[in-house]
Amino acid sequence: MNNIDTPAGVSEIARLAKRDSLVLMSASEAQRNEALSKIADALWDARADIAAENAADVGAAEADGLPEPIRKRLLFDEKKLKDTLDGVRGVIALRDPIGRVLLKRALDKDLVLTQVTCPIGVIGVIFESRPDALVQIASLCLKSGNAAILKGGSEAARTNRILYDIIQKTGEAAGLPAGFLTLLETRDEIAEMLACHESIDLVIPRGSNAFVRYIMDHSEIPVMGHSDGVCHVYVDKAYDPAVAVPVILDSKTQYVAACNAVETVLVHEDAAEALLPQVKEALAAKGVKIREGAYGTEYLDLIVSLRTVASLEDAIEHINTYGSHHTDAIITTDDAAAARFFAGVDSAGVYRNCSTRFADGFRYGFGAEVGISTGKLHARGPVGLDGLVTYKYELVGHGNIVADYAEGRRQFCFEDL
Amino acid sequence: MNNIDTPAGVSEIARLAKRDSLVLMSASEAQRNEALSKIADALWDARADIAAENAADVGAAEADGLPEPIRKRLLFDEKKLKDTLDGVRGVIALRDPIGRVLLKRALDKDLVLTQVTCPIGVIGVIFESRPDALVQIASLCLKSGNAAILKGGSEAARTNRILYDIIQKTGEAAGLPAGFLTLLETRDEIAEMLACHESIDLVIPRGSNAFVRYIMDHSEIPVMGHSDGVCHVYVDKAYDPAVAVPVILDSKTQYVAACNAVETVLVHEDAAEALLPQVKEALAAKGVKIREGAYGTEYLDLIVSLRTVASLEDAIEHINTYGSHHTDAIITTDDAAAARFFAGVDSAGVYRNCSTRFADGFRYGFGAEVGISTGKLHARGPVGLDGLVTYKYELVGHGNIVADYAEGRRQFCFEDL
Repeated sequence: MNNIDTPAGVSEIARLAKRDSLVLMSASEAQRNEALSKIADALWDARADIAAENAADVGAAEADGLPEPIRKRLLFDEKKLKDTLDGVRGVIALRDPIGRVLLKRALDKDLVLTQVTCPIGVIGVIFESRPDALVQIASLCLKSGNAAILKGGSEAARTNRILYDIIQKTGEAAGLPAGFLTLLETRDEIAEMLACHESIDLVIPRGSNAFVRYIMDHSEIPVMGHSDGVCHVYVDKAYDPAVAVPVILDSKTQYVAACNAVETVLVHEDAAEALLPQVKEALAAKGVKIREGAYGTEYLDLIVSLRTVASLEDAIEHINTYGSHHTDAIITTDDAAAARFFAGVDSAGVYRNCSTRFADGFRYGFGAEVGISTGKLHARGPVGLDGLVTYKYELVGHGNIVADYAEGRRQFCFEDL
Repeated sequence: MNNIDTPAGVSEIARLAKRDSLVLMSASEAQRNEALSKIADALWDARADIAAENAADVGAAEADGLPEPIRKRLLFDEKKLKDTLDGVRGVIALRDPIGRVLLKRALDKDLVLTQVTCPIGVIGVIFESRPDALVQIASLCLKSGNAAILKGGSEAARTNRILYDIIQKTGEAAGLPAGFLTLLETRDEIAEMLACHESIDLVIPRGSNAFVRYIMDHSEIPVMGHSDGVCHVYVDKAYDPAVAVPVILDSKTQYVAACNAVETVLVHEDAAEALLPQVKEALAAKGVKIREGAYGTEYLDLIVSLRTVASLEDAIEHINTYGSHHTDAIITTDDAAAARFFAGVDSAGVYRNCSTRFADGFRYGFGAEVGISTGKLHARGPVGLDGLVTYKYELVGHGNIVADYAEGRRQFCFEDL
């Protein structure tokens, strides 16, 4: 199989990825780490060629008049490559997510059950126009023993192509099955990929909310992603103004386009008189416009909704009603209020006295993330290696049959080992 | 709110269950266990009334000419009630699935991340005509802090109604929010329930494969269940006949209608000559018919497919191709062959020298199960309490803002606590 020279239909690509994923599933930690190490070296050796391809992408983006933020994300110079490869070496150093024993239990003296982590299989990832995302996602999928089918942003097509070629060839030369990594290059292939529920085990879309929702609505494959990032900061009646103002500012303005940026600030009515003037002044100084109402809107811009609430319970109800179950913070000096907030707010992240912008796989120490999940099943919040594995139950006996237990000749002992 | 006297539309029931689930989410372990204990007592106190309602269901089933296996499943006499209540007391004794710390990490000396288990929210369960299933599922959902919306088999309607009335009233009297448990009673309500993706977090269908597939195809709510149970026993070239024959027999005949019963037996060609006559004779003695081919068929009957394979690798490929990723066993005295089988077979359960019939929550020591998952995400294999929880990330700081870390004024330390 050669993905590069003989383009095949997506269903055939997915079938081959599934077949090869069953081989990859048995690759040892040493094999996977060695391949990652060789991939990092090969990418560094090819830095001049990568820079040249990236310059062509950036030039085309300029010629097409693409907005500056996109061109900035697209840039993949030697410094960004070096940072990205530091990230790959960080992934190599992470604990192996595969083969971890979650449970070991003697069901009987000669019958032992072991619950052990294993790869999911084939993961489809659709990501935005950042070439470093390709390297990062490919590394996480390989480290976790999953075959990956990638589709990157078309603006980065040349950069993605050379990065993919190097990673795929180096991985195959290191003994991995050829289908451990495949690159899709046209938008039409996304729809084809979504139909491959027999071969692809999980789809991770990154990008705009509308796009993620489109993916969720158009596939039988399980989807991991976040549909919205409507985050809140709530200031309780007992609070430290030296905490409240900087945390609100950071949550709103440190990077407005992020899903973990705050969209609504809630203030307890007993705190409003003293705090609101300070908050409004600080936000205005950063150019943030304040809206009353419009709760539940994800602005992703220098705009914030502001609401005074009568109680902590009202704040919790507001967040559970209008929020997107992503990340919500309370600013309080009251331990009981914080505990009530943590128990009552139904979100992936519940924070006290810190910025919502910490909701990120790197900042959680996961080394990297494939995305942030606002779903509750499988993985929630920032998703690193642990979200890319499942488990299987291994049972080892000595001729044990159920009839003996069902008919009372033998008894289970259930002893955790 | 009173679910019993004022029937509401399913979307309103689901909305109220969601609202009350946010209250239930904060119930302490002591509260949940005390409610379960009172429920067990109340059910035992009402044993005469329960037996009378059940006799009416069984009588109606006889009058309607329902087949004997259904009437047998329907019977819920004092002995079955007692066994079921022993099960409830077993659930009370299980470790609390809520509030377990999965990760605790200092991101910085004054910024601590804790990953802690919490309830999922609202779970819809559709189950077959066994009244004990209602009590078991209600107990597991309550123990795990989830609100449950139940729909049982219509043949058991009277028994389900009295069991539900007692459980709901006793739970509410013990301080739980009224909507912790709701019973749906008509088939039409299933379709309505499947549309409630804003209120219901997870649907668990139990029943025929066609039914489970229907549910999966007709809802945006995540579904946990198994679509098929095509299990295999493979006998490798080095095997103990004293293990192989009884394990094959038990896997096929101990209870043919179960999803974990074996449907195809694979035999290494070097073992075939000596083993096949014994296997065929033993199966024939139990009335099992042997089919060649028809691989991938779930007979759920005294029929089994039999195939000779040239190698362990061929057996693994057969299982990954025709199986349903449920539970597959190898019979071998060869440790290396067993290790290869465990790594290569992509199933929820991989077994050595024991019956596939062990794939069951009770037999794994989970106390009970809500079902068996052949999906790979969230929960796989028999699903007990651990499959009914998710987690949230709690982050406690002292005014920490991301800008300090992004701009190099502070560094993360990532120290696991």
